[in-house]
Amino acid sequence: MPELRKDPIIGRWVIIASERGKRPCDFKNIPESQSQAFCPFCNGNEAMTPPEVLAYRHAGTKPNEAGWWVRVVSNKFPALSPDGDVVRTGEGMYDMMNGVGAHEVIIETPDHDASYATYEQSQIEEILWSFRDRMMDLRRDRRFRYILLFKNHGREAGASLEHPHSQLIATPTVPKRVQEEVSGALNYYRFKERCVYCDIVKQELDTESRVVAENDSFVAFEPFASRFPFETWVVPRAHEAHFENIQKHHIMDMAKVMHTVFSRIKEVLNDPPYNFIIHTSPCNEPDLAHYHWHIEIMPKLMKVAGFEWGTGFYINPTPPEQAAAWLRGELADEIPQIPGANIPPKKQAV
Amino acid sequence: MPELRKDPIIGRWVIIASERGKRPCDFKNIPESQSQAFCPFCNGNEAMTPPEVLAYRHAGTKPNEAGWWVRVVSNKFPALSPDGDVVRTGEGMYDMMNGVGAHEVIIETPDHDASYATYEQSQIEEILWSFRDRMMDLRRDRRFRYILLFKNHGREAGASLEHPHSQLIATPTVPKRVQEEVSGALNYYRFKERCVYCDIVKQELDTESRVVAENDSFVAFEPFASRFPFETWVVPRAHEAHFENIQKHHIMDMAKVMHTVFSRIKEVLNDPPYNFIIHTSPCNEPDLAHYHWHIEIMPKLMKVAGFEWGTGFYINPTPPEQAAAWLRGELADEIPQIPGANIPPKKQAV
Repeated sequence: MPELRKDPIIGRWVIIASERGKRPCDFKNIPESQSQAFCPFCNGNEAMTPPEVLAYRHAGTKPNEAGWWVRVVSNKFPALSPDGDVVRTGEGMYDMMNGVGAHEVIIETPDHDASYATYEQSQIEEILWSFRDRMMDLRRDRRFRYILLFKNHGREAGASLEHPHSQLIATPTVPKRVQEEVSGALNYYRFKERCVYCDIVKQELDTESRVVAENDSFVAFEPFASRFPFETWVVPRAHEAHFENIQKHHIMDMAKVMHTVFSRIKEVLNDPPYNFIIHTSPCNEPDLAHYHWHIEIMPKLMKVAGFEWGTGFYINPTPPEQAAAWLRGELADEIPQIPGANIPPKKQAV
Repeated sequence: MPELRKDPIIGRWVIIASERGKRPCDFKNIPESQSQAFCPFCNGNEAMTPPEVLAYRHAGTKPNEAGWWVRVVSNKFPALSPDGDVVRTGEGMYDMMNGVGAHEVIIETPDHDASYATYEQSQIEEILWSFRDRMMDLRRDRRFRYILLFKNHGREAGASLEHPHSQLIATPTVPKRVQEEVSGALNYYRFKERCVYCDIVKQELDTESRVVAENDSFVAFEPFASRFPFETWVVPRAHEAHFENIQKHHIMDMAKVMHTVFSRIKEVLNDPPYNFIIHTSPCNEPDLAHYHWHIEIMPKLMKVAGFEWGTGFYINPTPPEQAAAWLRGELADEIPQIPGANIPPKKQAV
């Protein structure tokens, strides 16, 4: 079983998971022409994964066989394991606990070559429903304090399999990064008696220069203090602390804005690797007035280096106002200048 | 001039530095055979860099010409600029300041192909003296609150030039990551009335299993809660808050332990990319009883992905006890299993 260990200085938890060392990486080893035959997430290969915990499938098809359009399975090489109770222990000055949690894979589509930039809007809606259904189910387990939903797209962003998938990890403690965000938002609320995210949405819509897309329920924009070139946040206009409380018409609007954002990112940046993360409240929190769920999308165009590791500062060569103009299609003749990024020169108009 | 912008939720600062977008990356564009002719850091190419701010050179040689063994210049594409006073302003709900600071490059050797694993011990001592000299000089400038010394080795670790160099960035605010560490150490001190790093050194020496190397003044070990496979800390045995107070015999012992650690990392992991960072006290702090300077070395064998970004947790497939045994040479027949890392199979003994 994996082991959680706590850094005694800043309280950062680390998961020591030796089994993860054995997971394969299909980006390196398998010739592209054969990749679908060997892909555990492709239609017909259901037996290659652990049994499904959820699947949306056509009437008459059987679990763990073909016929699904979204399928959720346990991770074969989990970072945390669902067995047993959380046991906290010490070793001299150090603190640790056993690695209890859940680690699931959301296989977003049977289509090996699709992505958020090419899905039909209805497919994105189905994926979002599966996110919500798994969160609603897992939050009933009292051992879990937080459920993180995220996606790694492309090898540089940490994906080890090519087939489109997202992941969910339920943790036995509220992660430090989430605590920081919730308590930072609480500080603002105490000072202003307003939600900081509601204020950000208002200022971004007033300013306009960083907005990428919007509709009745969502706004997508490049944050004022973007860490990375083309970092993009998708925030619901209406205040809501928990993602899993999302309603049907919001799912439709969210799918629409995600489709626009990912299509634009793919076009402007040549299908870059990226991570996206759903930032939502810890499981046991009530409907907080100071916290507001949202998505953060981070294209991985640059390496995080010593300065970032040492300071928590980030150096971003692309002003978010410029990135937003690119994503809105206003700078179609120019190429973003990002050292090391794989952005091809524009084709000259004839 | 670069601009510093503050995230309104968690207080993270970001440097928006458009000029950095224009810096070249020699890993991609220049054939290896020609790289020394075009390398701005090689002997004889001094005119290709900004003028030197410090150089250790042979008697009779002139500034900005050949004849040096360590040379420090301003970064040609600086993240922060040394001109003017720090001006803090607002934009609606957002906070920002102008990007005042210093960004220097320490060219560690005239030898394009050397590294910490191959330097003579005396060369490492000279590099450490240059780190100290630049910190002593820059801390007199009252605009600077923190001086970060770090190294990016290899493209995957964020280096854009191959020639061995370290960097120094002086910032007009104490970085969040440093504040966290100093205040985490203060919490421990208030509870125990002991320095947390002194306690760690004691426990590591007692336990032995994570120790990689030691001598009279320094201990190198894999931290209990290692974020990454083969993360290694080098900590002085004696309590000292500021790196720049280091004495001559400590420099010699530090060079010795660094040489051992980097040679072993190179051998076991096939010259991996890595970052190292000197963690030291903010400029204006007195000799804190609760903070203890040290070096953190992080080989870059794995990608940081969505889970790490979303939680601040890290998933590490290599237990630090095992990494230490490898670095001590006790597991010479086995290969570390790290997905995606470029570690070649061992040669079979005949």
